[in-house]
Amino acid sequence: MMPEAPEDINAYCHQLADRAKAAGRSLAVTSGHKRTAALQAVARAITERAENIQQENALDLEAGEQAGLSAALLDRLKLDTKRIEAMAQSVRQIAAQPDPIGQVIDGYVRPNGLRIEKQRVPIGAVLIIFESRPNVTSDAAALCIKSGNAVILRGGKEAIHSNTAIAACVRDGLEQVSLDPDTVQLVQTTDREAVSQLLKMEGKIDLAIPRGGESLIRAVVEQAHIPVIKHYTGNCHVYVDAAADDKMALDICINAKTQRPGVCNAAETILFHKDAAQRGLLKRVCEALAAQQVEIRGDERTREQFPAAKPATQEDWGAEYLDKIVAIGVVDSLDKAVEHINRYGSKHTDAIVTTRVDAAERFVEGIDSANVMVNCSTRFSDGGQYGLGAEIGISTDKLHARGPMGAADLTTYKWVVRGSGQIRQ
Amino acid sequence: MMPEAPEDINAYCHQLADRAKAAGRSLAVTSGHKRTAALQAVARAITERAENIQQENALDLEAGEQAGLSAALLDRLKLDTKRIEAMAQSVRQIAAQPDPIGQVIDGYVRPNGLRIEKQRVPIGAVLIIFESRPNVTSDAAALCIKSGNAVILRGGKEAIHSNTAIAACVRDGLEQVSLDPDTVQLVQTTDREAVSQLLKMEGKIDLAIPRGGESLIRAVVEQAHIPVIKHYTGNCHVYVDAAADDKMALDICINAKTQRPGVCNAAETILFHKDAAQRGLLKRVCEALAAQQVEIRGDERTREQFPAAKPATQEDWGAEYLDKIVAIGVVDSLDKAVEHINRYGSKHTDAIVTTRVDAAERFVEGIDSANVMVNCSTRFSDGGQYGLGAEIGISTDKLHARGPMGAADLTTYKWVVRGSGQIRQ
Repeated sequence: MMPEAPEDINAYCHQLADRAKAAGRSLAVTSGHKRTAALQAVARAITERAENIQQENALDLEAGEQAGLSAALLDRLKLDTKRIEAMAQSVRQIAAQPDPIGQVIDGYVRPNGLRIEKQRVPIGAVLIIFESRPNVTSDAAALCIKSGNAVILRGGKEAIHSNTAIAACVRDGLEQVSLDPDTVQLVQTTDREAVSQLLKMEGKIDLAIPRGGESLIRAVVEQAHIPVIKHYTGNCHVYVDAAADDKMALDICINAKTQRPGVCNAAETILFHKDAAQRGLLKRVCEALAAQQVEIRGDERTREQFPAAKPATQEDWGAEYLDKIVAIGVVDSLDKAVEHINRYGSKHTDAIVTTRVDAAERFVEGIDSANVMVNCSTRFSDGGQYGLGAEIGISTDKLHARGPMGAADLTTYKWVVRGSGQIRQ
Repeated sequence: MMPEAPEDINAYCHQLADRAKAAGRSLAVTSGHKRTAALQAVARAITERAENIQQENALDLEAGEQAGLSAALLDRLKLDTKRIEAMAQSVRQIAAQPDPIGQVIDGYVRPNGLRIEKQRVPIGAVLIIFESRPNVTSDAAALCIKSGNAVILRGGKEAIHSNTAIAACVRDGLEQVSLDPDTVQLVQTTDREAVSQLLKMEGKIDLAIPRGGESLIRAVVEQAHIPVIKHYTGNCHVYVDAAADDKMALDICINAKTQRPGVCNAAETILFHKDAAQRGLLKRVCEALAAQQVEIRGDERTREQFPAAKPATQEDWGAEYLDKIVAIGVVDSLDKAVEHINRYGSKHTDAIVTTRVDAAERFVEGIDSANVMVNCSTRFSDGGQYGLGAEIGISTDKLHARGPMGAADLTTYKWVVRGSGQIRQ
């Protein structure tokens, strides 16, 4: 059983952190074979207990309806048989990925005969704070087990019953192969004070990963004494250069905005070089977007070409709509586009459409974002699309991990130096 | 000229951060050739203005004497012709190192034809807070220029005149090759409030690196809203296994403790397996250390073998003496040694002396430290000894960079994805 919902938040948080640290230390010396077996047992437990997970999910849905959650939020929360099987399948896929632990990243022999190696090792104990779908519970737990880390999961209160049922499957899977069930702990209180306390557990918890809205992330950053990797908003751009292929530009703009508008790598702003705008490309893109019920908010030059656009305000340039809305602007040069993107973007994913090599290279060099795309849709910025396997999220930070984060990004390294009695002169 | 010492700390800090961010952006698109030329100009400026640096240093020394600084601290502060030339030489060596920027860390083609690359790019703007010798000013500035980063340097108040004179040489060197002198800014106030403010400049400053004592680092961690890489204490251990070669164990213990006791990779605690202690090895090591004026603080079993040892207190196991003092203990097994080191150590550098392969591997796997040594002195844990070139310090953190940090560790990466019109299905 997981520790009970607490009376004394401080004591409870210390208990969570102590257990995570101990579980992390013992997991660090476990074979990859055993970690894989644990994941297979977790997947089995999820499949076998699908009915129980659905019953618990029904409690969350009922409470959500009473609390007046929107239909979209209720849909995100809902777990049916198909979704539960997809969760189990995702855990199986993570089990099948290559093991990052023990990988030698670098290795060489020094003139004095010392053999030096950088070896991938687990980080230790990770705290993941999330607001979204209950499947994050099994995905995040599986990626942490894969990479040899203990994890403390803090999900949203609207999904507490679902998350608890899923976490119980994970802990059962761990126990079935005699691994410490405290490798995965779900915080059993929705009191915000618990997060504040956990973020101060230096020496016990090694990393915090917040996934959610701006206010959540800001609160985490302000309170944390432990390292944080932020998975922030995706205000992604497509820049259509003067020298763009019109058909390619049209396809990429439409795909980046409309293929799945509610995700972080969908485009929110499209910028056109003034020449591309003037030759009618802007108008064609706007018409195609409007035909797909996308609301267009344009600057003055956009509205000259496409008068049906609403006027864009200053806020539009910084917005992550996650919806069928797009901001469109016209710039005088590639450099102005780079300036605009570095100023208003969220350093997530930005694309250029161009036929010119020099323009592509200047864009790649100038844009200060985790992912820079040339002649393809921003929607490709994704761990699966990059071939990394399941991802813990997309880091908009620069330290440790940037862009899509897979199991290998949940590791650190250790310098191992082997000698034969060398001493320093 | 650098901005004047401020009236309004808040406005001054924003100015520093804005200038650093702008300088960082422009440095990120500068050729390696130009960064190297800048470093060569910096080295020339230091050599040419050695006399001025010495005059300014004399002001610090005078103030230090009046303030009653110890002889050791005054010696660390002092710059003579030889030390100034060593500073210039260090900058030349950094200039000669390979350029980390633009390096492709990973690259492959996806089935859909997307070419994906992870490219090393500068982090942006770095804040380095240090307490020690004035040569850190030129070393840290040179490593940041090498890696394409802007840097804000905050040195100790006891070295403010020396640091200012050295920073002026750095800024002149940058200007000589038409790079933005604000690439390197020295904080012109010793008000602690400035550090607090700079640590909250998210979006402008990307990373803080504190180098110094525990209270400095704790204050930084508590206040920072930006990522921090800590360069903490080195409470390093040597563990002498039951199956150690006696001569090798003796040499390594003496070297690790006495070759340079005042540095972070010197050993502070030596642990003996009880068998190694009982066969007289502990006694021989203690005698050899005592002959070199090392004060020995031992546990009960140590004092049975070497009665001249003072009794070790609980505090001794956690101490970083940086002096000719050593704590010595006897353990019942390798696992007990690992437990002791993970509990009391500072995760910096720990060594085992053993002839047995299984013992070496269990130690390497079990110790949760940045550097784990087998059969060599802890003193080898150093960027130069590892072949990394000059180091910004030794990280005791697990995220981003662990152990000796060279210029490449002052970089992040960018995913660059090149397509030919691909859209997501």
